[in-house]
Amino acid sequence: MTWWRYLVASMAGSALTMVLIKLNRTLAPRPNTIIQNYPSEAIFFPGPHLGSVPISDEQTRDVNDLSESLQRLVRHVNSARQSLDLCLFLLTSRPLADAVLNRLSRGVRVRLLIDDSSVDVSGSQVSRFRREGAFVRSKASAYLMHHKFCLVDDRKLLNGSLNWTMQGLMGNKENVMMTVEPTLVQAFRQEFERLWTEMESS
Amino acid sequence: MTWWRYLVASMAGSALTMVLIKLNRTLAPRPNTIIQNYPSEAIFFPGPHLGSVPISDEQTRDVNDLSESLQRLVRHVNSARQSLDLCLFLLTSRPLADAVLNRLSRGVRVRLLIDDSSVDVSGSQVSRFRREGAFVRSKASAYLMHHKFCLVDDRKLLNGSLNWTMQGLMGNKENVMMTVEPTLVQAFRQEFERLWTEMESS
Repeated sequence: MTWWRYLVASMAGSALTMVLIKLNRTLAPRPNTIIQNYPSEAIFFPGPHLGSVPISDEQTRDVNDLSESLQRLVRHVNSARQSLDLCLFLLTSRPLADAVLNRLSRGVRVRLLIDDSSVDVSGSQVSRFRREGAFVRSKASAYLMHHKFCLVDDRKLLNGSLNWTMQGLMGNKENVMMTVEPTLVQAFRQEFERLWTEMESS
Repeated sequence: MTWWRYLVASMAGSALTMVLIKLNRTLAPRPNTIIQNYPSEAIFFPGPHLGSVPISDEQTRDVNDLSESLQRLVRHVNSARQSLDLCLFLLTSRPLADAVLNRLSRGVRVRLLIDDSSVDVSGSQVSRFRREGAFVRSKASAYLMHHKFCLVDDRKLLNGSLNWTMQGLMGNKENVMMTVEPTLVQAFRQEFERLWTEMESS
């Protein structure tokens, strides 16, 4: 009657395995899977290495000369492979417009919802967007279309206080958050489509 | 010489344990821990049930009469137990100011960083904040302190396009994102503290 000895041996093996698994988890905890799966990023303006460069210079400078914060934002725009959906109060920043239209010229679909009152402001890039093949919609209203968000490939959301303007980028204290968190991305996708439809009739 | 039989038995027990653990994980997969652990929310303005109420009425109405979106935002403010750190371009909305000061009266520490040019605008709630015991800082600048974010208990971040104004709440197309994602909350905490120190000397 040695069967119970084998049973004890197998239980000991089982217990040892569980202890080892537990020990492995304790000694080598995995990095926070949330951060791993859903990267996010906060970008603050004005970024470092900006100094006291006059605002007026922004439009003529190469993007590589601009602040680290703007470079990070441009990098997210550049990551688009299928679509860029912009919902903006203002669009006068040439480096950002350049980045978007560069993607457009490589086959990325660009849609722009913009506040009606800012379509024709000085420095506006809207007519350039239209000319180069972006879909643009706006609608006259007593209130502002005050959003400042951008959806990259329906997957990545950029949102914050930053208007896509010279002043916003070069001097103001501003922020842009980047997230790929599905709840938020999905909500902003829905809102974009809702507004896109709403402004169709204008 | 039966020691190897016990070894085989213990290895069998170990293998069976691992199979059972794996099976348990496969058959009963855990719900997405990201969404569970880190709730997030997108609030869009103007919210439902707002109709065409005149802006001017906002200041006199009870918060329960206001839009669902504003109610959701107020609920997040009301959730504060230790601290509310506000970094705002504008603060003229009475329902939001009421919510914050109500928390202050119950022992929540309130700090407000606000754009210098908006401290004394019509409807500004800043002097009321000072009077009731909030810590307020601002600094004269050629550029705007254009942020519109709020940290609740150093744990929850509210951020977006919405200025805490009547117009922002009642008519504009606006958004507020709520997240407790550590990367983002931590980044905005650091930025708040950096700006708080920067504006100390003013």
